[in-house]
Amino acid sequence: MPIELTFIPALLAILAAAGLGRLLSMKLRQPAIFGELLLGMILGHLIILSTTGPEAAAAPISAIAQIGILLLLFSTGLTLHFETLKRLEVASSVVAISGVILPFALGYFAAVFFGFPFHVAVFIGICLTATSVGVKASVLAQMRMLRTRLGALIMGAAVIDDVITVVIMSIFLSIFITGVVPLAEIFLFVTLAIFFLLLALTVGIKLLRELSERLSIGRESLLMFGLVMVLGASFLAAKIRLAGIIGAFVAGLVVGQTHYARRLRDHISLVGGGFFIPVFFVTMGMEFKLWEITAVSSFALVLVIVAIIGKVVGCGLAAKASKFSSAESFAVGVGMIPRAGVELIMLKLGLDYGVIPPAIAPGVASAILLMVMVTTFVTPPAFWKTLQMARSKRELITTAKFGWRRAP
Amino acid sequence: MPIELTFIPALLAILAAAGLGRLLSMKLRQPAIFGELLLGMILGHLIILSTTGPEAAAAPISAIAQIGILLLLFSTGLTLHFETLKRLEVASSVVAISGVILPFALGYFAAVFFGFPFHVAVFIGICLTATSVGVKASVLAQMRMLRTRLGALIMGAAVIDDVITVVIMSIFLSIFITGVVPLAEIFLFVTLAIFFLLLALTVGIKLLRELSERLSIGRESLLMFGLVMVLGASFLAAKIRLAGIIGAFVAGLVVGQTHYARRLRDHISLVGGGFFIPVFFVTMGMEFKLWEITAVSSFALVLVIVAIIGKVVGCGLAAKASKFSSAESFAVGVGMIPRAGVELIMLKLGLDYGVIPPAIAPGVASAILLMVMVTTFVTPPAFWKTLQMARSKRELITTAKFGWRRAP
Repeated sequence: MPIELTFIPALLAILAAAGLGRLLSMKLRQPAIFGELLLGMILGHLIILSTTGPEAAAAPISAIAQIGILLLLFSTGLTLHFETLKRLEVASSVVAISGVILPFALGYFAAVFFGFPFHVAVFIGICLTATSVGVKASVLAQMRMLRTRLGALIMGAAVIDDVITVVIMSIFLSIFITGVVPLAEIFLFVTLAIFFLLLALTVGIKLLRELSERLSIGRESLLMFGLVMVLGASFLAAKIRLAGIIGAFVAGLVVGQTHYARRLRDHISLVGGGFFIPVFFVTMGMEFKLWEITAVSSFALVLVIVAIIGKVVGCGLAAKASKFSSAESFAVGVGMIPRAGVELIMLKLGLDYGVIPPAIAPGVASAILLMVMVTTFVTPPAFWKTLQMARSKRELITTAKFGWRRAP
Repeated sequence: MPIELTFIPALLAILAAAGLGRLLSMKLRQPAIFGELLLGMILGHLIILSTTGPEAAAAPISAIAQIGILLLLFSTGLTLHFETLKRLEVASSVVAISGVILPFALGYFAAVFFGFPFHVAVFIGICLTATSVGVKASVLAQMRMLRTRLGALIMGAAVIDDVITVVIMSIFLSIFITGVVPLAEIFLFVTLAIFFLLLALTVGIKLLRELSERLSIGRESLLMFGLVMVLGASFLAAKIRLAGIIGAFVAGLVVGQTHYARRLRDHISLVGGGFFIPVFFVTMGMEFKLWEITAVSSFALVLVIVAIIGKVVGCGLAAKASKFSSAESFAVGVGMIPRAGVELIMLKLGLDYGVIPPAIAPGVASAILLMVMVTTFVTPPAFWKTLQMARSKRELITTAKFGWRRAP
């Protein structure tokens, strides 16, 4: 009469893949996420081959993975230098907006050039605007560069990009389905989002600071407190239609301003890095199924190139304009390349709502999937390399104020 | 387009209940598990009252709870003093067997006295033989008494009790359903179980010791390694029809003999104690539904008393015979009182297979449920108290070798 352990074989396979992936990354001198994604993709293909695939185990695994991405964003918020982030508010917005406009325009014109109808071209353009927050957070954390100006700029821009993309996609779908611009809805969303942010970053910080000054709690209880904060904030954020990860990120920023920050960062990095986050990246890799790319057309190749150029040029120039060095600006651009989270949801919505006519659906879906896969797999090594370059150049002109924190 | 976060409200409620429960326990000077169970029971009743109960979230939450009990047993195995455990092998077996025979006999005769048919009386007797491993592990860990002789005796006996109960129940059900004693099956089970234990405790320890001497790994990777060990061992154990928690416990014993033990104990206690284990105890409390006790008969009251006396006298006398002090022996007996895990599964099997005739099923089920609830809720405070008594008496005659580790 054993307890039901249906999810355990799948979880074991995923953890083993994560361990192997990390080992591989270490050998190849790549960021851990690269090996995790790669082994995840291999595992995803193996599992399908076996007839006893752990389909029944899907819900628990996906829940663990979701906690993983929330913890990654929470820990990123905890680690970022809040004052630097605030000081770079404008620069981050400029980078985000520029990194939305250029990829959209390039994607739109490429699609028009290949003869796709207007609304499909707009949809493809929108699919190029987002960026994967998790990939860069993971690489920046591993290089211990989250507390630098560059780290603050990249994460700030990534989060703003995520919000913009959600808004644009909602507007597009609403217009496509109902034919009208959902002005009231947009107004409500923006108001609630601003209210949530302001409340968290003023009253939230004040209250938690007082709590942390008065109450010192043991390590288990502190971890539990941190988890309640991250889950609560994600839930609230999701309720007002912000992404859950934005809530987790804001919760990290808030808790980061309290006396709990240092110890909690330590606990969350252990729990997240040793279990939840690797499960997230391996399962993300598992979603990449090579056979779903039924056709590699010239359009698909153009889309991949355009997706990369759009972010590198769009974000890089904006960073350069915000007085970052050339090496830093290049790193910003490269860091914004990966698309992974939102695009797959978008593609599904686009197919479900019939945005893409059935006749051309397989081709468009293949192109977008290829774009997602290539950008996700190319970015970690490239980002790693450009960050190293930016860091080595930076060291010559480093200031005491924003000095790089070296790995121990 | 938020990620699906359906399980988050339920998880939040459970973590909040765990936090409140711990606070309550602290105020009442009770073990943490007491408050967690109590708040869990309250939460279980509240959730049913609301119409939007998080039924959809059941699978992830139950997976987290299952990882919790596995981590609790793993950390118990990691912490126990292996040499002491081996030295007390015989004493533990005597305590376990005596604590199986007396409750069975008392339960059987009580049921016969109240006029139940023979096979129902046997079934009721078997329902009294098990003991909840988790409850005592939690209390012993919190009192930092796992590394004492008393801790080793109690946990050793508890695990042996668990194995005996599983075997007895399998035999009973097999006879009831097929009419024959499953000799071949029992032989196979016992052989595999012994093989598993011997292999783990000889080759397993040797291999892992060598690994730990050669390879020093970072903290995240160490946690990941520990999780792979506990999940792998549970899976293997479940495959050979041992309970998963036995596998986790053995994995803990094995890893406990390596250089990783100290750091891993630290990591697992944080991850388990700060998240997974509280979720386990709160959800265990949630399973106690007061309305399922439809009738409190005099038989039910007798069953509760018999369940308590059976373990206190049966295990206590055996401990005393194994040269433990009176206060210690009493603590052993009290520690073995709680029934929670296996009994509920047994009851379900008993009802499903029609062991209990439908006419008397509600009465019998109510009596067993009452017994489970009372023993589970009474034990933590009583065990806590008797352990304190045993410890204070012990301090007068403490030896250097088996000195108590004091809480810091």
